[in-house]
Amino acid sequence: MNVKVKKGDLSSAVESASKSINARSTMPILQSILLKAKESTLHVIGTNLELTIETKIDAEIEEEGCVCIDAKLLSDLTKKFSGDDVFIESDGTSITIRNLLSEFKIVGQLAEEFPELPRLTNGNKFSVNQGIFNKAIQKVLYCFSKDEFRPVFTGIYFEINNGKLTLVSTDGYRLSRTTVDIDGENEISFIVPGKSLLEVNKILKGDKIEIVVYANHVEFRILNTTIMTRLIEGQYLNYKNVIPNISQNIQVKIKKNDFMRALERTLIFNNKNNYVILKNYNNKVHLSSQSAIGKINEELLCESTGEIEIEIAFNAKYILEVLNAIDEEEVIFKFIDNKNPIIIETDDFFNMTLPIVIKENISNAA
Amino acid sequence: MNVKVKKGDLSSAVESASKSINARSTMPILQSILLKAKESTLHVIGTNLELTIETKIDAEIEEEGCVCIDAKLLSDLTKKFSGDDVFIESDGTSITIRNLLSEFKIVGQLAEEFPELPRLTNGNKFSVNQGIFNKAIQKVLYCFSKDEFRPVFTGIYFEINNGKLTLVSTDGYRLSRTTVDIDGENEISFIVPGKSLLEVNKILKGDKIEIVVYANHVEFRILNTTIMTRLIEGQYLNYKNVIPNISQNIQVKIKKNDFMRALERTLIFNNKNNYVILKNYNNKVHLSSQSAIGKINEELLCESTGEIEIEIAFNAKYILEVLNAIDEEEVIFKFIDNKNPIIIETDDFFNMTLPIVIKENISNAA
Repeated sequence: MNVKVKKGDLSSAVESASKSINARSTMPILQSILLKAKESTLHVIGTNLELTIETKIDAEIEEEGCVCIDAKLLSDLTKKFSGDDVFIESDGTSITIRNLLSEFKIVGQLAEEFPELPRLTNGNKFSVNQGIFNKAIQKVLYCFSKDEFRPVFTGIYFEINNGKLTLVSTDGYRLSRTTVDIDGENEISFIVPGKSLLEVNKILKGDKIEIVVYANHVEFRILNTTIMTRLIEGQYLNYKNVIPNISQNIQVKIKKNDFMRALERTLIFNNKNNYVILKNYNNKVHLSSQSAIGKINEELLCESTGEIEIEIAFNAKYILEVLNAIDEEEVIFKFIDNKNPIIIETDDFFNMTLPIVIKENISNAA
Repeated sequence: MNVKVKKGDLSSAVESASKSINARSTMPILQSILLKAKESTLHVIGTNLELTIETKIDAEIEEEGCVCIDAKLLSDLTKKFSGDDVFIESDGTSITIRNLLSEFKIVGQLAEEFPELPRLTNGNKFSVNQGIFNKAIQKVLYCFSKDEFRPVFTGIYFEINNGKLTLVSTDGYRLSRTTVDIDGENEISFIVPGKSLLEVNKILKGDKIEIVVYANHVEFRILNTTIMTRLIEGQYLNYKNVIPNISQNIQVKIKKNDFMRALERTLIFNNKNNYVILKNYNNKVHLSSQSAIGKINEELLCESTGEIEIEIAFNAKYILEVLNAIDEEEVIFKFIDNKNPIIIETDDFFNMTLPIVIKENISNAA
């Protein structure tokens, strides 16, 4: 292989491919990037077997060919290059990379050792505005489960229906749901690994993202980059059935930023469950938290409707993650009682978070 | 104690005091900050026994008194406060801190448990422009020894003479020296722990720094903050005697930034000693480095004078640290041969760095 590419193209392609690479993998080939020079394109590919990221860049190709290079090394090199053009030559294992007056001779691995990529056929395609998709996945990405014993909950549920995409995630303690408009008419649902979607989120660029769903995989196509991930098999939770009836509820409307800053202060003592007790009366919200080293009390003005008193304990980090994901300046909390979920709802978003059961002594001490 | 202070004053005083605190200390009192309210001043003091940092801030004092508070907790609190005024009340152990609608009740420690600060008398005072002092200590701070078996080299040598302050540091492999003008006429020399000076460097602010030298301590006074550190006892190296005769030398003048970028690239392979071989001929500098995974060659234009060929190996990180500390766009390297130190010299600065002995096989392979 003998190719010439632009430094900027190579550098950003390597950066994208690196996002699929697990530096702690015990298989050296999985720490490598596959470079494949064919026709007028250099394919830059990384994979961790679940997630594969491929970027195609324009190249002047003297000789076609493939080789694998350690991803970290290639990333360090391209970041520190100073000239515009990068020349890569390889006989399949040894590689020479030149840039301006720098020359690097390194040992690579044979392209044959790189995992074979699945051949995907018969995909269902739809597309969505990239900015909108980005905001939508941020609204659900913090609450998928990290517990591999319940695999479906380690994914984000995608449900397409009537030109709308609904995204749902839950870890058993909380559930988030959001809906966005898409271009595409299929009715289809599937579960995307949360970890893969985190990487998609980092690579998002351009105006539009194309999503193609196959039997066991999904592709996210963004400009010249394709991110492919396996789907999670299994039946997702019927989320509509778990949402409580909130017709008879208590509503508290409060300035989001003030509430977030107060919550952050309650976390300073770092108590074990991050639990905070919220009391609401006289159009004021009182937050309290304590640990062995002290107590914190916070007071905030709010507008309350419904039955006006509630005392409920919750994980402050969970609520902070929800508030971080939404744009509204004022937020409405809905409560039923101190045993039912706390609900935060906006036009296109719904979250419910289970409270922490307050023991009598905790409640009195706070 | 019952005081009212401005949040910004308290926050920056706590930040300064925290720089003297070793979070891994096994004595809880050394992880605390002493607050001392007296007359119209709140003294905010941290210490690790070697280094003590005290800031005096204006306070409205209802009741004088002292208390110790965990430094990390107080720092987290003051950073996250939202109102301007902070009220601190304490009976000596339990503490209430109020700010706007937030109230914190925390457990403190008795001020009596805080280490007693030395009483310093008969100091020699001189002063120096803060910006100049800052630049000067950056020119020597990277090369004091971390090896506690040679205590004097873990410090920076201060030598005052004829209205000038000379700073010297060495770790046995390299030596840096710089000189600045000061206000003050004393002739005195002393050794300041490098670690303490690193903290002084972080706190530097204002126009002027006053330095007061006592028998066993030195104070750096910056606006309302006083940084006090023990001096290191012992005789420093007679640095003038170790500087080689460089009348018969090879000089290489080169663009500093290009050279630094090239050196950084040679470090990508992360070979054990960071060693790089420099060859100089035909007004070109060639840098090379290698490890088990590959080789790097770099070529740069330069202006050479003297005997024009040299081949010398050195620790690239050492030379990068020197180049990082100086402002010049072009830098002149002086070489005698491949066994004598590499010398980098500017108007007010001198550095010499020992080369690495090149084994025959290393030299041939590169």
